[in-house]
Order: sequence, then structure tokens, then C-alpha cells
Amino acid sequence: MIVRKVDVFREKQGINLLTGHPVTSIDRAAKSVKGTTLEGKPFAALYDKLLIATGATPILPDLPGIEHPGVMVLKTLADGRRIKQYLNGRTVRSAVIIGMGYIALEMCEALQTLGLEVAMVKPNPRFLPWLKEELAAVVAEEIRAKSVTIHTGCRMTRIDNSGGHLQVVCEDLTLDADMVLVATGVLPNSEIAAAAGIELGPNNSIAVDNRLMTSDPHVYAAGDCADAVHVVTGQKTWIPLALRANRAGWAVADNVCGRDIALSGVVGTAVFKVFDLQVARTGLNRKEAAAAGFETAEVAIKTRSRAHAHPGASTIHVSMVGDTNTGRLLGTQMVGHEGVAHRINAPAVALHAQMTVEQFSQTDLSYAPPFGPTWDPCLTAANQLLKKL
Amino acid sequence: MIVRKVDVFREKQGINLLTGHPVTSIDRAAKSVKGTTLEGKPFAALYDKLLIATGATPILPDLPGIEHPGVMVLKTLADGRRIKQYLNGRTVRSAVIIGMGYIALEMCEALQTLGLEVAMVKPNPRFLPWLKEELAAVVAEEIRAKSVTIHTGCRMTRIDNSGGHLQVVCEDLTLDADMVLVATGVLPNSEIAAAAGIELGPNNSIAVDNRLMTSDPHVYAAGDCADAVHVVTGQKTWIPLALRANRAGWAVADNVCGRDIALSGVVGTAVFKVFDLQVARTGLNRKEAAAAGFETAEVAIKTRSRAHAHPGASTIHVSMVGDTNTGRLLGTQMVGHEGVAHRINAPAVALHAQMTVEQFSQTDLSYAPPFGPTWDPCLTAANQLLKKL
Repeated sequence: MIVRKVDVFREKQGINLLTGHPVTSIDRAAKSVKGTTLEGKPFAALYDKLLIATGATPILPDLPGIEHPGVMVLKTLADGRRIKQYLNGRTVRSAVIIGMGYIALEMCEALQTLGLEVAMVKPNPRFLPWLKEELAAVVAEEIRAKSVTIHTGCRMTRIDNSGGHLQVVCEDLTLDADMVLVATGVLPNSEIAAAAGIELGPNNSIAVDNRLMTSDPHVYAAGDCADAVHVVTGQKTWIPLALRANRAGWAVADNVCGRDIALSGVVGTAVFKVFDLQVARTGLNRKEAAAAGFETAEVAIKTRSRAHAHPGASTIHVSMVGDTNTGRLLGTQMVGHEGVAHRINAPAVALHAQMTVEQFSQTDLSYAPPFGPTWDPCLTAANQLLKKL
Repeated sequence: MIVRKVDVFREKQGINLLTGHPVTSIDRAAKSVKGTTLEGKPFAALYDKLLIATGATPILPDLPGIEHPGVMVLKTLADGRRIKQYLNGRTVRSAVIIGMGYIALEMCEALQTLGLEVAMVKPNPRFLPWLKEELAAVVAEEIRAKSVTIHTGCRMTRIDNSGGHLQVVCEDLTLDADMVLVATGVLPNSEIAAAAGIELGPNNSIAVDNRLMTSDPHVYAAGDCADAVHVVTGQKTWIPLALRANRAGWAVADNVCGRDIALSGVVGTAVFKVFDLQVARTGLNRKEAAAAGFETAEVAIKTRSRAHAHPGASTIHVSMVGDTNTGRLLGTQMVGHEGVAHRINAPAVALHAQMTVEQFSQTDLSYAPPFGPTWDPCLTAANQLLKKL
């Protein structure tokens, strides 16, 4: 999917953009790529430097009936248009969403807002398993308050289709729907790279160094297909999100063209909106921290989004994880109705700076009654966490 | 002004709280304080450790007529009640505000919202002189759009009072008002400390070390009367704001009681709301940076508060200052209708960590379409500033 018109690349930038030319193999010795055009014509192209920017593809569960019309995925602009077309082309009163990640939750809101009855289903018994239990419960409550049903721990066996009406059949449950959205995550498109012997990283993403170079010095990779260094663990990770993809795109262009740009890595900052809630995270949760070898302490606190006397305040939930050996801040999560999306950036920067919880607790964060309590919720969490370190 | 009831201190915490006992002198040799109660009775009290938490007092310009009834200041809760009482006790249709700082602007909004015609006046020709010109112009425009008039560069000569109606007389202008609010800043209440020979800091605030100890090891000071270290310059500064005052209060209590708490200092983070705008700053502006000996580069950018396709987006203005010698981030300012108050905390933490602009430009900040562009406005500013360093 090309957001800019093909002509712009060809005429204004002098780039010979070839759409409809799927590459099927890389010959690293010959420094060439090969494939067959959509019209069936074989093609090959030589390179000095090759950039693989193949993105990621939605995971389709191995579920009989997943090929039925009305079972949709959402990754590309074309997928979005297909869903819109489907909704406009018939009476769609209900939707089942398989999966409960960012995309599933954002689509849950979008479909419920369109007036559909929405049910969400997945095999894992925990809702938002990466989020601290108390915070995940707040999100689940918000979704249920909008009459969306959440079915966790449901093993699906098949999708049935009788006359355009769909049924998601689970072991102990059958969910009826006019439309099924599959949003169970994505996987990196790394098959061509792997077939060419290029090293892979976590989740079979393409392993790159901090200059986006793969194990082959003439081949680069950037975007959702490539891995990154996690600044907190120092280890490779695969977190396919927009900012890193965009940043890597700029950096790789510089590096391929002879400038030298090194990226420092990611801390896994993410935010999404679901109905009236903002849900954000940065760094590691306690389980991830333990897996990376940290000994951890954790707090979960509740505070207010504005000064106590200010009208319109709501509850903000913050959880924070620290390293009991070094006192380092390892991660922060936040859920609330306002003031969450950008507040998460303060601990995100602290993670980049490898700050201790004590150092972070001393930072001079903004305060005015309409925007928060005197002590920002992140500072209150840090002060509480300090007592456990 | 005691926010908690006196009984709570006396009965629940065992603190012999003496209100109505103004201290007039400190005898450091005898380790005692002396004064006269509001009932005219002399008193004295010995101390092992003394904490001076005398706060700050509004500056009253040396203006004939400033003593007229209807000329008000706002610092304490009692001041606020006095203003309310004045507004409720008569027909007040118009107000003149002398000064254009945080309090002046917040009161401008409050009085305009109550239906008053509001004019603001001050001698300095620049509106918000600490704010980058382009950003200050956005704030001025917002205020004027609410029919508030702004008179900068006006030297006031007196306040006249004829039958409860006030006139603020300037050299080339006379402003009529039913009420005048004087909001020209505050000064630290350090006279007693100075008289006792305790060292003073910037703006005659009481000089303290990072443990809130004054030049006398038995005397501490905290709150708006005391100074602090500015983390960016390493020099002393006096920025009387709530978070530092509160934090210093907690730290000094620990230190007086034998724990050892050192504060790292402030970066001057502040935010205020005026009508629909959020105005925030952290660190140094270009002039302050130059005064502290830095050679600087600066950018001012405009970007959007949400992703380009997302409805409801508005303009965010960001200015950023960096050190051309070391590449260090020195300060950031921001004005916008949403998403400013907490966004400022990302550069604030970066200042504490002494990050370079390049390091900050690589941070992994949150992104989702309802909350911002893929590149947070702070990152866009940092990317632009990098080109100048």
C-alpha cells in the first residue's frame, strides 16, 4: 500500500518505483532480487544496497471456516476499505472480534460506536495479560459498561457460515455474528530474508544492528519486519509500532546513502484509546523484567487526574516496576480517562536515561490544578515504589 | 493559612501548633525565636532545629492609591475569599489586572468567565517575555479573542477612586474598573532570616543546600521562601512553585528528624491554563541560557495535536533550545489547545538526565492517532533543532 502517488516517486524524486512486482527471492552473491510481476512476467533487479521493508502480516488462526466471507482482518488501508464496504453492503447488526490486543480493542470501539452488538473472544484466560491485573480490570469494566461482552479462556473450534450468518464455535460457547474480525496480532514478513540466509531475531523478525544493517552488510531492514534493541534489557526485541518503523525508515535512508545514523533502541512505549479510557505502557512489566533477569518490586497506585478541588477529575491508575538490586526504573503502566497518553512519556525518557526510581522521583514535572495533582501520578507511584526498593 | 484543622496537629500528631504567634526575630546563638502574639503577649521558644517556611508575599507596586478598597491581591486562601466576597457584595462589571504572569492570566480567565469586562496592564512592553515570541503571540491572540484587552508598555502613575469606582491611570491611558487585581509576582519572606544573618540566595530567597539546610546548620528553610539548584545551569535559582515547595517540605521533615534526604534540584517546569490554551515550559529559554553562559541554537515549530487524519486536531507550537558546544538540551516551551500540560514532562526528564538533543530525539514516546502525530511534537522540535547544532 503506497500512501503517496506512484508518480511523485517517479517524476519528482527520480525513484523507479515498481508496484505489482512481488519479490520472491534474494540472490546475495549476485546482489540481485527476483520475482514475477502480477501480470506473470519474470523480473530481476541488481542492487548495491538492498532495503527490506516488507512489514508484518496479521496472524490467521488455524481455524476451519476462517475463509468465509465476512471474516475480516485489519492491517492495511485496503483491509480497512474492505471492512467499510462489507458494513455498507448489508445489514450488519453484530460482530465477533477474535483477539483482544490494541487493534481488537480499537475496532471494538469503532464497531460498537456504529451501533453493532460486539463480542470479543480469545483462548487466553487473562484479559490484557501484559497489563497489571488491577489496571486490566479497569479496562475490562469500561468495555463491559459499553455492553461489549468479553469471553476470555474460550478455545475456538471453527467458524460456521449459514446463509451469510456466521457462528464462532468455541468448546463451551457459540457466538453468532454478521461479521467476524480476526485481530490476533501480526508476524514479521521475513520469509525472503530467511530463505536468503539472513539472520533472524525475536519472533522471526529480521535481525538488524543499530544502523539497520542485517547480517549481510549490503542488506538493510526497517519497519515492522525488523527487530530492535530494547534499551531496558539491552536485548533484542520485536515491537512493531509506528514511531520505530518511521524512525528506522529515515535512519536507513541516511545510512544507505552514506551518512551514519545509529539508533539507540526502543523502550516499548505504547498507548491506545478504548472508549473513554487511555491505556499506556513503557518499559517492562514485572513478568518481562523477571524474564530478563531482574529482581523486581512493583506498586500499583490510584490517584486523581487533576488537583483535588478541581472539577472533572477522574481516577488515574499507575503501576511501576523497579529493580531491587540497582534501584533502576524498569517500567510503568497507566490507565485513566484523561492525562495518560502523554504522561507515560516522562517514565519513557527516564528509561532511556537509565534513571533509578529515586532519580525519577526527584524530577520536576508540571503542575497546575486543571491538569493534575501537585505530585504527578508518576511521581506518586515512584515515591511508593521507592519504599519497596 | 492552615489547610488542616489545628486540632489534627495537636491531638493526632502531638505537634504544639501555635497559630497567631508571628515570629519577629531569631536568636541563633540562643537557638530561640521571639515574637508577640496577635493578642499582644510576648513569647519565645527554644529550638534544636528550626525550619523557616515563611512562603512568599505578593509584590505591591509603589503606586499611589493601591490602598483603595477594591484593589486586591491573590496569594492565600483568605485573599481568594476576600475577592469572592467583594464580587458578591456589589455590582462588579469590570476589572483591571495589573501584571500578566500565571496568576494574572488565570484570574483573567476566571473573571472573564464570571462575565466581567477585563483589561490587563503592565509596564514591560513584551507580553510573556520569558516565552518565545511566536508562542507568546498565540497566547495573546487567545486572550484577545475573549474580548480581554492587553495593554503592555504602560507606565502606571496612580489608582484613583471616586465613589467606589476605580481608575488605573497610566501615562497615556486611563483604565476604568470596579475592581483592580494586582498580580505582579511574589517575593520570598526572608526578612527574619536575613536579620539573623542567614545567607540569602537569588531574589533574596533563603539560601539552602540540597538538604534544605541554610548557612546555619541548625536552621532549615523550605517552600516559596527558599532557593534551589537549577539542574540545567548548576546555579542557584528561585522558582516558587508548588511541587518543589511540597517536595522540600517532605525532605526537610526527614532531614530534621535524622533521615538524610538530598534533593537534586529543579528544571523550572511550569504549566498554566488560560481559556482554551495550555502553556508550558521546562528548562531555560534562550535568554536565560545565554545568561548562564551557554551558546545556543533554537527552533520554533508548529505541528498537530493528533494524527493528520484524526478529527479534532489543533495546532501545537513547540520551541526548543540547545547548547551548540555540547549538543545538550537546555529547554522547551509549548503552547496548544490540548496535549501540552503533560507532554512538557518528557523534555523535563531529559533535562534532569542532562540528555543531548540527539539523545532526546531518539526517545521512544507514545503514539496513537487520537493523541498525537507519529512523531511527538517534542521529537519533531528536537529533529529540527539537531540540524542547527
